Parts: sequence; C-alpha cells; structure tokens
Amino acid sequence: MPRIAYFGPQGTFTEQAARVLAAAEDELLPVETIGAALSAVRDGECDAACVPVENSVEGPVSATLDGLAERAPLVATAEALLPVHFSVLTREDVGTVRTVASHPHALAQVREWIERNLPEARTVVSSSTAAAAVAVQRGEYDAAVTAPVAVEHYPLRVLATEVADVADARTRFLLLRPPGRLPEPTGADRTSIVAAAANRTGALAELLAELATRGINLTRLDARPIKGNFGLYRFFIDFEGHVAETRIGDALAALRRRCNNVRFLGSHPRADGVEATIDPGAANQDFDEAFDWVAAVRAGSSA
Amino acid sequence: MPRIAYFGPQGTFTEQAARVLAAAEDELLPVETIGAALSAVRDGECDAACVPVENSVEGPVSATLDGLAERAPLVATAEALLPVHFSVLTREDVGTVRTVASHPHALAQVREWIERNLPEARTVVSSSTAAAAVAVQRGEYDAAVTAPVAVEHYPLRVLATEVADVADARTRFLLLRPPGRLPEPTGADRTSIVAAAANRTGALAELLAELATRGINLTRLDARPIKGNFGLYRFFIDFEGHVAETRIGDALAALRRRCNNVRFLGSHPRADGVEATIDPGAANQDFDEAFDWVAAVRAGSSA
Repeated sequence: MPRIAYFGPQGTFTEQAARVLAAAEDELLPVETIGAALSAVRDGECDAACVPVENSVEGPVSATLDGLAERAPLVATAEALLPVHFSVLTREDVGTVRTVASHPHALAQVREWIERNLPEARTVVSSSTAAAAVAVQRGEYDAAVTAPVAVEHYPLRVLATEVADVADARTRFLLLRPPGRLPEPTGADRTSIVAAAANRTGALAELLAELATRGINLTRLDARPIKGNFGLYRFFIDFEGHVAETRIGDALAALRRRCNNVRFLGSHPRADGVEATIDPGAANQDFDEAFDWVAAVRAGSSA
Repeated sequence: MPRIAYFGPQGTFTEQAARVLAAAEDELLPVETIGAALSAVRDGECDAACVPVENSVEGPVSATLDGLAERAPLVATAEALLPVHFSVLTREDVGTVRTVASHPHALAQVREWIERNLPEARTVVSSSTAAAAVAVQRGEYDAAVTAPVAVEHYPLRVLATEVADVADARTRFLLLRPPGRLPEPTGADRTSIVAAAANRTGALAELLAELATRGINLTRLDARPIKGNFGLYRFFIDFEGHVAETRIGDALAALRRRCNNVRFLGSHPRADGVEATIDPGAANQDFDEAFDWVAAVRAGSSA
C-alpha cells in the first residue's frame, strides 16, 4: 500500500491537501516537521510527501524550499490549492471565550475576526492549529482556530466556520516523490526549478532572459538566502509549461549551461487549470520546425 | 526629543538594532507589532521606526515588506546588521531545565543546541523572545531563549550566550522615516524599491535588464504575493548605489516608465561597508560624460 508522509499533526490543512492528492488506497502518515516528511521519502520509508509550498498571505514556506534545494533530489508530481479559511472550535462547557489558541500564522489571518466576534478573548500561540485543538480539549484554553478537517479528529463544538480576514487567501501544496516517471503534459502545467545565480551584475537578469526570450511565462520567483552565506541567494522559479515540451526543454538546457547548480523540481498539472500563454513564434511547433530547419540546413537540403 | 518606535517588547533583537541606529538623545519606544511601528511614523507620533527586514536563515520579514508597499511612503535612511546568537536565561532556583520557551523562529535556530545541551527539555512557543523571559520570571517555564539584550530588562541567570545552530546568521534592520532629506552617498550604499511587474511573459526579466544593462548589481530580490490576488506579486529589489548618483537615477527613471507603481524605499550606507561594483563604462562619470555628449550633439557643438 503506497504510503504518503504529510506535515502533521492530524487535523491540519496539510492533511486536507494530502487527502486531495492521495489515491483511495494510499496510507497517510503524519510526521512532525516538513524536513521529516521529505526525509521519509528520501530514506524510502514513504513513497511520497505532501507539504505546503506557498501561501498567498504569508508567502513561501521556507522549510519546503530549503528542503528541496539540498540533499537527494525530489520532484513535485502534483499540486493542490486550498482556500485558507478556519474553523473556531470550543468545548461544550465554554460560555464566554476568554482565550483563543492557534499557530501564529493562523492567528495573524483571523485577528480582525477575533476582535469583532470574541472581543473578550486574548490570543495564545501554539505549535500548530491541531495542538491548539488538543489544548482546548484538555481545558487549557477556551477556543482554537483550526483547519476545517480538525473537527473530525478532535470532537469539539464548532463555533464558526469559513473564518478569514483576507478573502481568497490560498495555500498551495506539493506532492513530492523521488525522480521517476513524470506526469503527462496537459497544456496547463507548471515546471519548477531552483538555481543559484552567479554573484555578479546581471546574472539573474540573464537567467530570466533565457525564459523570457523563449516566451515562457513565470508564475513565481522566490529568493532564499543560502544558509551561512549572508548575501548569497538561491532562486526558486516556477513557470508555465512541462519539461516534455520542446520549448521548456530548450530553456532548461540553457539554464543548465549558465548555472552549474540548477535542479529540476518537477513538471505537473496546475491545480487552477490555467493554460500556458504561448507568444507568437514560441509554440512547441515553432521550436520543432526551427530545429528541423537547422537539421535540414546541416544536411544540405535547405538554406 | 526625537522618538523612535521599534518592534518590541523591550529586550528583543530589534531593541538592540534601535540602540545601534539611534542617536544618544533619541527616545526609544517599544510597540507591539511591525505595523504599529510604521503607523507611529505615518501618524506623526514618532520620528522614525526601527524594524527587521531580512534574516539570513528565515528570509524576508513579510510584515515589513508588505507595510512598506502600502499606505503613505516611508524611506529607509540607515540599516543595521546584527549577528543572530541567543542567550539562554533561567531562574536562580532552576536545577535541571525541563522546559525552554521562545518565539518559534528563535527555537528553530537553536534546536540542535537544545538537543545537545538540554536533553531533558521540551520546547514551548511564546509570542516573542522577551515574552519567554517574562514567563520564566513568573515560574511558568524553566528557561528562555532570548536576545542578548534581554538580560538587562529581565534579571535572570545567564545559562549560555552566543547560542546559534547556524554560524554567521544575521538579521538586517532598517530605520524608516517619512520622505525628506536623504543620507549623503558614500560609495558603499544600498537603494531599495518595490514594484509590481506587469503580469505578462518577460516583464520581470525586462525590469531587471534595466538595472543589468546599466551595470547595477542587485543585492536582494523578494517576491511577495499581493493580498487577495493569488498569483500576482510585488518585487522588492535592493541594489548597490545611491539615488543621487547619475547611473542610479537613470535606472530609476527607466523603471518608473516601465511600472506605473514603482516606489522608492530609500538610499543609505550599507552596514557591511561593501563598496559598489562598477562595470566598465557604467561609472557615474561615464554616464555624466555620455549625457554631456548628447547635449553637445543637440547643441550642434559635437557629433
């Protein structure tokens, strides 16, 4: 039975994402950290890992990005996009809510809601949204701000659902596996790489120009400091397209020439189904015909 | 007496940075959040704000970046670079340390040290490093991981100093003021901007090319999602040089043409004193002479 490690505990958004990405027969295993989820796949204990990669309010998830840049390669074979709205859970015996516990990131995203709806409550930080639910069960706090799935594990009273200060906040999750068979291209795919640009004027601009001149549209770019090297950065770049396409393969080969440390992080269908923008002269057919023409020139059959 | 708001409470790294950046006569006022520090300056309650902007392990500080992109403009007039090493404080009466409290970011940076040196301790999250010290004073936990300055406010026993899993971790802080007189150029300056590149293929590459073709060296680039617009990003770009220089002014004007929303976030001396890299033909004198030549051509006195 395939085993999927996810950044737990049970009852978090990552469990919800893992349920979306897993097949019916997969076994889901919560692990304590994002690093542990990646290690479980690298060490062969699990077949895949489900971890968050970016949030539309908080930005990139550092532990995931750093974890993909180092140690044995892993590639994303699927993604899930979850709306970030919370449930507020209490015990049956709680009247006025005086304490609300959650992870600091969750509290930051419901601050206005708490001020409006629980004006007598002070907030308390916990190590995860699920840990907050456990603390409420134990009677340590009055209410917990949790992922919607939490109530399935922690039988508490649901005080509110779909709580969020920012409408349309979303978190994107990846399903990561060791390099192997890639998903088929669909026309609405995302490819991810990480590369450390040389530390000289124009290095990043040149790297991005390799994508731009081939008509490849970026969907995300994150710089992460390289540990122990203040001022040196790795760039995590997502763009439209699939490595199986001629235009994407041509761009990746160019990046490989420019950066001796470029790493492929996966090509998979986009969760939002947005199809790739194709500029004039930059479709796969244009690339194929151009390469064919060069071959014909070399063979002396065209000019 | 000039008043400087800083992201408190007392006894944090930001207080240490504010002490570095403040003049002797300045009054330092701790405020609860980064947003409150910026608001205190915008509302005229304080003359300047001291906040963290990036950490070499954790990356950019989202609240600072988002806070600078929205509402009334603020500009950085100085920066400080602090080594991130922690002190571990306990009460006099504690024997074996069984609980260690701190902010989640601090705990993440001393995890290995705790495993080696306090093997019987479990970690507990608090809302700040200083809040952890207060909780230890109250007897709630045995030890706190804090900024070195904390012991001046919270008289506890110093169990260890210079604690850090990653050597050379550093945090950079900014002193922010309303737009006004800028610091003089020194030859070792940093200029910061924020701009939302158009959502089309090549937009970011073109923006960076405006800097690269003028020989301007980037020192940082961070993408931040624009709230409520998943998939749309603002780019925070730091580069070498001062807006008073011809070469930098020329580049800023080009960015202003390209992006209708570019905002200047300051030019100030670099804390590390690293002088700007000047490419051949890209010194200020080269720019000045070139503009002079165009003026002469227009006047009919050269060709």
